[in-house]
Amino acid sequence: MNQATRIPRGEARRRILDAALNVIRAQGYSATSVDDLCKAAGVTKGAFFHHFASKEELGVAAAQHWSDMTGGLFAGADYHRHADPLDRVLGYIDFRRDILAGEVSEFTCLVGTMVQEIYDTHPDLRAACNRTIASHVATLVEDIRQAREMHAPDADWSAESLAWHTQAVLQGAFILAKAKGGAAIAADSVRHLRRYVEMLFAEAPAE
Amino acid sequence: MNQATRIPRGEARRRILDAALNVIRAQGYSATSVDDLCKAAGVTKGAFFHHFASKEELGVAAAQHWSDMTGGLFAGADYHRHADPLDRVLGYIDFRRDILAGEVSEFTCLVGTMVQEIYDTHPDLRAACNRTIASHVATLVEDIRQAREMHAPDADWSAESLAWHTQAVLQGAFILAKAKGGAAIAADSVRHLRRYVEMLFAEAPAE
Repeated sequence: MNQATRIPRGEARRRILDAALNVIRAQGYSATSVDDLCKAAGVTKGAFFHHFASKEELGVAAAQHWSDMTGGLFAGADYHRHADPLDRVLGYIDFRRDILAGEVSEFTCLVGTMVQEIYDTHPDLRAACNRTIASHVATLVEDIRQAREMHAPDADWSAESLAWHTQAVLQGAFILAKAKGGAAIAADSVRHLRRYVEMLFAEAPAE
Repeated sequence: MNQATRIPRGEARRRILDAALNVIRAQGYSATSVDDLCKAAGVTKGAFFHHFASKEELGVAAAQHWSDMTGGLFAGADYHRHADPLDRVLGYIDFRRDILAGEVSEFTCLVGTMVQEIYDTHPDLRAACNRTIASHVATLVEDIRQAREMHAPDADWSAESLAWHTQAVLQGAFILAKAKGGAAIAADSVRHLRRYVEMLFAEAPAE
């Protein structure tokens, strides 16, 4: 059966990108061959190279695809409804904890996985991973900035810095989940992150 | 030139392990071939397979070698001199910030890099990476436990949990350093970690 002949034009690219998200998160970027991706996507190698000049070009497009997919997930999440920006920030953290479910490969991060391996050997892919992380960080900065203005105007840390730190905790939590083989240790670190953010925004005791 | 013939018996194994630390941190586990390791170590493939049955067996031994090397570094560090256990905990965090220097491949973590890729495909190597992280965590727990007893006896978090969280922050900080291409963003997250630990141990305000 040659599935590729039955795939409408344009759909092959999307199937390859969806496959990349799953296969690379499960076995890493370097260990994933073009053959692995074609098999998972149900497309021919000809179709792959019609859409992508190389595995690295696919990786760059997959980082953008990841950005689009997760961007939609976060944009549609419930935590944006809160009136107080601090509740939105804490709601984001709780949402991150809530989606730590299922197989490790399902809740871990495509671009964190790729950049860990290729940061020094594939500069274009490194840049694509950084863009994806930075664009997610940018969605957090405005809520943190507003929360800082409202609850901690004299804080000695910036909204940008705290937004990046949330990603450090999440990326590191994924690594511990991979090492220990489960989400529990990751959820524990996200709870520490929540406690930290609560304390940063707690009113200073009256003197 | 066949360097292997000039290497004393027993030294080849150590040279391969040292090479593994550098090459795998620079380019990842899957992208590193046995040939890469032999070339970096200056040994023949025969010497490699005399010491290791497979690349995975080398990876398992490299995780232990990393544990031995970094264990010596931390055991000999200055922060243990403090009388107050909280000062030892904060001194550890400052030490971690201070060693974020040089090339990204020089300050990032061998086992965090490996487990990110191979957690689902190489169970023995995953277990070895987890042992290495867990043994480092174990060196932190006693100081945190003493600090908790002295400064925050009613805390609703355990010493073990906070010790693992420090490693989440560090592992995630390494990923951001790889994405952004430098140590500054990692040092920023370690500063957030220090602030969190300071706040956890701050005396509760008198009522």
